[in-house]
Amino acid sequence: MTETAPPPQPGPTTDPSEVAERLRMPMVDAMQTQRAVRRLITTEPVAHEVLLPLLELSLKAPTSSNTQDWTYLVVEDPEQKARIGKVYGRLYKLFNPIVTRQAKGDPQELRNMAPGQWQAEHFAEIPVLVIPCYRKNMNHRPTGRPQIRVSSFYGSVYPAVQNLLLACRAVGLGASLQTLPIWWIPSIRKILDLPRDVRPVCIIPIGWAKGRYGPTTRTPIGEVVHLDHFGNQPFMDSAG
Amino acid sequence: MTETAPPPQPGPTTDPSEVAERLRMPMVDAMQTQRAVRRLITTEPVAHEVLLPLLELSLKAPTSSNTQDWTYLVVEDPEQKARIGKVYGRLYKLFNPIVTRQAKGDPQELRNMAPGQWQAEHFAEIPVLVIPCYRKNMNHRPTGRPQIRVSSFYGSVYPAVQNLLLACRAVGLGASLQTLPIWWIPSIRKILDLPRDVRPVCIIPIGWAKGRYGPTTRTPIGEVVHLDHFGNQPFMDSAG
Repeated sequence: MTETAPPPQPGPTTDPSEVAERLRMPMVDAMQTQRAVRRLITTEPVAHEVLLPLLELSLKAPTSSNTQDWTYLVVEDPEQKARIGKVYGRLYKLFNPIVTRQAKGDPQELRNMAPGQWQAEHFAEIPVLVIPCYRKNMNHRPTGRPQIRVSSFYGSVYPAVQNLLLACRAVGLGASLQTLPIWWIPSIRKILDLPRDVRPVCIIPIGWAKGRYGPTTRTPIGEVVHLDHFGNQPFMDSAG
Repeated sequence: MTETAPPPQPGPTTDPSEVAERLRMPMVDAMQTQRAVRRLITTEPVAHEVLLPLLELSLKAPTSSNTQDWTYLVVEDPEQKARIGKVYGRLYKLFNPIVTRQAKGDPQELRNMAPGQWQAEHFAEIPVLVIPCYRKNMNHRPTGRPQIRVSSFYGSVYPAVQNLLLACRAVGLGASLQTLPIWWIPSIRKILDLPRDVRPVCIIPIGWAKGRYGPTTRTPIGEVVHLDHFGNQPFMDSAG
């Protein structure tokens, strides 16, 4: 109660009208405080009355030629989560030493890694895993070439993913965007019984947040924006 | 003034505090009324005081391993827009007859295509084109395999694109997500002087909206969600 900013993290709820109210958060506040939140306050389930409206909002995002070829796998069954967690665990053991070595000597970096480690070790306990998938066809390809058909595939999924992440932030659910846990697509397809043309794109572990959302820092806009030609950066000093 | 819903489309502004106020739109309203808006009320420039805060908000979205390897090309120069418009025009002429043939006999479909045609014919007059690019490296690949490295590339750009589209919607700027105008990546790279590792992902034409935002319809969530296994669809009737 002594903290004044950021606003208190809203706690768990199962009340749809409370969810609706939280989703009325000013858009700019949701965007400015969005961050990956991996630590959970509870491993209790997320009520379907809470989750489904967020998934509906997710699907308000645009898709290439309005194809709407999504399939969302919502995984709550502990055995299914354990199977996916096992795939992730193998990959985490493979990649974690590399990342740890790269962070050597930087206590901040190592602190930043702790929530990821917590999550990898508790993957099967996360209340719900959302795995957005999209249908592969001639115009929408998850791999290969040309670039634009590939871009059209992911451009039909990640805007919806971002809506879901923002919606989770607004209601106080911890969420993050990950690809590592589904790296072995054939294993994930087998676990979820996915048809060959339904391709998993990423995985979003969700539960009531313990870690806090809050302001994030980014590269200044003036360094990112080039006007008319690459190399022309007139906003280097003006914008912050 | 006789209409009560949806709320009146906010008109052009150059006032940063007005922009800040519009960005406080309830998040759920912005998401539920987002749609591609291609018709513009004016071809006057969009003030940098208006555009830059939206781009900053865009970059609040997450990136793979927090790489933040974006480059945003903001194209306002009429000659540059004409060059890109020429690339687009060739492709539009190629694809439009196919789409028109597919829509045969459906007046609604043909009506839906009119704004796209207006835009293709007036591409060089659109006030500003935003072209988000991302850096290609070992872990983030715009084409090829494996799928997860490709997904990590686009997963670092399209969440930011969605923030930009939502921010445009909130302030009353018309915007849409397109890939067709940059289909010929080598032509676009040459026009913009892009280095080989900076890959354009999509293009977002922006100007003050004439077309209205408004509620969109989507496939019911119960048809999209599968629980634990593909084929298990318990929400087919319950959710709307």
